[in-house]
Amino acid sequence: MKVALIGLGSVGRGVAEMLAKKDDLGLVLTGIADSKSAFMDPDGIDITRVLAKKKKTGSCGDQHLSAADVIKKADYDALVEVTPTNALSGEPAIGHIKAALNRKKHVVTSNKGPIALAGKELRAMAKKKGVSLRYEATVAGAIPVMHTLEHGLAGNEILALYGVLNGTCNFILTRMAAEGLTYEQALMEAREMGYAEADPTYDVQGIDAAIKLVILANTIWDNGVKLADVDRTGIDLLTPDALRLADEMGCTIRLIAEANPKKRLLRVSPRILDKNHPLVFEGTLNALTLETDMAKQITLIGRGAGSVETASAIIGDLLYIRDRYVQRA
Amino acid sequence: MKVALIGLGSVGRGVAEMLAKKDDLGLVLTGIADSKSAFMDPDGIDITRVLAKKKKTGSCGDQHLSAADVIKKADYDALVEVTPTNALSGEPAIGHIKAALNRKKHVVTSNKGPIALAGKELRAMAKKKGVSLRYEATVAGAIPVMHTLEHGLAGNEILALYGVLNGTCNFILTRMAAEGLTYEQALMEAREMGYAEADPTYDVQGIDAAIKLVILANTIWDNGVKLADVDRTGIDLLTPDALRLADEMGCTIRLIAEANPKKRLLRVSPRILDKNHPLVFEGTLNALTLETDMAKQITLIGRGAGSVETASAIIGDLLYIRDRYVQRA
Repeated sequence: MKVALIGLGSVGRGVAEMLAKKDDLGLVLTGIADSKSAFMDPDGIDITRVLAKKKKTGSCGDQHLSAADVIKKADYDALVEVTPTNALSGEPAIGHIKAALNRKKHVVTSNKGPIALAGKELRAMAKKKGVSLRYEATVAGAIPVMHTLEHGLAGNEILALYGVLNGTCNFILTRMAAEGLTYEQALMEAREMGYAEADPTYDVQGIDAAIKLVILANTIWDNGVKLADVDRTGIDLLTPDALRLADEMGCTIRLIAEANPKKRLLRVSPRILDKNHPLVFEGTLNALTLETDMAKQITLIGRGAGSVETASAIIGDLLYIRDRYVQRA
Repeated sequence: MKVALIGLGSVGRGVAEMLAKKDDLGLVLTGIADSKSAFMDPDGIDITRVLAKKKKTGSCGDQHLSAADVIKKADYDALVEVTPTNALSGEPAIGHIKAALNRKKHVVTSNKGPIALAGKELRAMAKKKGVSLRYEATVAGAIPVMHTLEHGLAGNEILALYGVLNGTCNFILTRMAAEGLTYEQALMEAREMGYAEADPTYDVQGIDAAIKLVILANTIWDNGVKLADVDRTGIDLLTPDALRLADEMGCTIRLIAEANPKKRLLRVSPRILDKNHPLVFEGTLNALTLETDMAKQITLIGRGAGSVETASAIIGDLLYIRDRYVQRA
């Protein structure tokens, strides 16, 4: 199966490296683009050389070519869209995805913007074109949430879900609880470890978790919820006193995303949880509990971010498309 | 898709009830058998009536018919084999499964005996006949372990695994730690709650967990390991003192099944774990951590037993076969 890759940040690099390393998977890279250049080869790109060029010159390919050229002209079966997330406009990713779907190409993305903002439209478009749009990597990184919903829990009704969907907040709360740090001190530590951005708003005010919650809710219940529908409270106003009080009750505080359509609940907020609760763990992990009619509660825990971890989710989606569509065509 | 169901104990009843309840799944029951009788109807069995008859008379169908008749003569696409597990001979389930595969019928089973004892042979037979043999329900009940290995973590190399695969032992250890009970006292409590059999050997000596470990290892690494290859220690000799000592170190004891082929490790034994370890939780839950090259550690937690919970795994397998084979035929 031929693959085109748009975006060469941390996730794109992880995907490219894994495609080069795992050359027995039958996935051949035929197009690649970063923000400044692009490169195509219908016989398969020498990934190691392209990554070396990117490292040396800052560009992966020819500066007269762009992502749009690859999407419109390259010879590929599936597009991997991993440009940076824009949570307000979803662009340029939405445009990229539409252009590929219009060419009847499958699309795999880790990009939360397009799926949260235009998921319904894009899914309908993929269906109409007879191709697959997959986005396992948009929620909880390496944890195979979408595959679990689609196959592992097939036949189950999903009644509710709750989870830790932002590793940065979980790290900050872990450090505040363990060392009695203030929010500002723990945030500084998270920045030093590379877990928090220079502008942490997106993470600490629960926006990132809320976007993932919107993607999950629409995927499961197709209920057309939007980011503005999420009842959202961040962790940036939490004091060490709040964590100390929780600790005295054998509890701690975690930023929990939760949805329950029957209760009209769609919320991201700091919650007091018993220390033995399955969603209480240390560090930057993510976790999700799905409440279902037959399997009851199923909890998945794993890495919510990381270059190779996110590539794992993207490659899982590509292999699913390979087995289901391309190999049989 | 037409389904035949062999076995009407707790799991079989759960499957039948869910097929009756979820009549929109496109799964039609055309054959059913318990240990004494059987019933067939190519147009679809009235499940509610058959279950009522079973409850009233002890038999689900005609006493002149048997499971073998259903397997050989009924009109079905997939056989669900859920007779009681025989860990020594694997019979009569192995015979049932072979007879169905010989007819080029798909097979779904929760029966650990056949898969642990003859998994390689049965998988090869299914492959030769061009049908699917699925056994999600054999390991960790409702937790979709096999689907996760097959799809969610596709493309990953599985390096090692460790888990809590026996809920009875986890319950006993939870109660010993929480209340300072002796093993015998906790076992009695487990019996009263319906979590332990009259003869608890199979659970408390780690045999059940070891069988599941063998199934997992052979599925992942195809390394031909057998029950006798598992280095196995049960929980029946643990004292309250051992749990108290662990507690003083901030730890507790759990029965852990673990496999790591590079380290030649295949073991079920009581392990001292930090109370914050993801595999430390209370009650009868099961959990499994998969260690992989790309996704790193993924942990799945859920119900390891139960009638409807096990039916969830079986129905997931049936729907996978429906989507992959039958709908496209």
